[in-house]
Amino acid sequence: MDAHKYKSALLDEAVEQIASLPGVGHKSALRYALHLLKQPAANVEKFTSAICSLRNNVRYCPECLMISDNGVCPICADRSRDHSLVCVVQSLRDVISIENTGQYHGLYHVLGGVISPLDGVGPADLPIAELEARLEKGEIREVIMALDTNMEGETTALYIYRKISRFPVTVSAIARGVGFGDDLEYTDEFTLGKSIQNRQTFTV
Amino acid sequence: MDAHKYKSALLDEAVEQIASLPGVGHKSALRYALHLLKQPAANVEKFTSAICSLRNNVRYCPECLMISDNGVCPICADRSRDHSLVCVVQSLRDVISIENTGQYHGLYHVLGGVISPLDGVGPADLPIAELEARLEKGEIREVIMALDTNMEGETTALYIYRKISRFPVTVSAIARGVGFGDDLEYTDEFTLGKSIQNRQTFTV
Repeated sequence: MDAHKYKSALLDEAVEQIASLPGVGHKSALRYALHLLKQPAANVEKFTSAICSLRNNVRYCPECLMISDNGVCPICADRSRDHSLVCVVQSLRDVISIENTGQYHGLYHVLGGVISPLDGVGPADLPIAELEARLEKGEIREVIMALDTNMEGETTALYIYRKISRFPVTVSAIARGVGFGDDLEYTDEFTLGKSIQNRQTFTV
Repeated sequence: MDAHKYKSALLDEAVEQIASLPGVGHKSALRYALHLLKQPAANVEKFTSAICSLRNNVRYCPECLMISDNGVCPICADRSRDHSLVCVVQSLRDVISIENTGQYHGLYHVLGGVISPLDGVGPADLPIAELEARLEKGEIREVIMALDTNMEGETTALYIYRKISRFPVTVSAIARGVGFGDDLEYTDEFTLGKSIQNRQTFTV
């Protein structure tokens, strides 16, 4: 018995669209669709127009390319931050994660993606020329790579490294190792290997 | 350091709207918003218009009140099903769950909610008169209550039981194979199937 035949084309279309969100399966999408269906029409209108408005009216910081409603973002505008440090990240989520650590006081460069031929994203689709333009100004002395440790992230970091190696800047990458609270036993071999290679002098 | 100050009002509004979905937290909502932001405008338009269209153009089966694009739904229209059995459920999700067990071949009556004074839902907001009208026709011999086993579900079942006890029908409830506090939606098919087979005469 196919449950699909008892649903409507309207519902199917909405569920299919919602299930296109990352990590949202068919069951959750159905749940969200039925939730929206129960809301007053005005709420659903608010829901969809907030998303449309975000997509159509979003503006980016001309410096770091982070989402910013009004020109230069608060991080780039903050002269108390270290403007000689730039951390290259994939998305705003990573900026928020790093900001939440309270350990970083430099600037960012938000790529908005990584090189991924399978998804049709090539180097030209990423704002790497914009990073070079920032380096041209000569104020930056270190570029920190903070991209994901998967093939796309590594490829992108390597590509950027080659592009910017002509500038007199240090290029670093965030340390990889065993996370706090992680068991060695359950850490993958690559991470554990890296964390042994990159061991630090013991401090108490 | 407040991560919020680095975000835009447009993004905040979209995230807040997405986080209004059931079980979606702020972090997931941000992830979905950034995903939508990366999509072509046409895709986002498709996404939001599918939701608007569902909310504004949805139609219901005049018999069982299940979502149905074209008049009587396929379940009510199927004469090979047992039209003397009606299963009262809260939503389409529960219909799908029960259909997936393959154990039930009667009809449904979709309430679209349960009595919940805290949410402002009273008995008059539920299609209970419509259930009575179906019983008036005399074809139905058994009503099976398949509402969630929480206070609202129990209250609703009791209310409906009292309303329909004047009809010469058996009123049963799905067996308590479903754990207290569990939602039908997340119950495995075997348990749910058994609980329909082993339904009990409704007692107060």
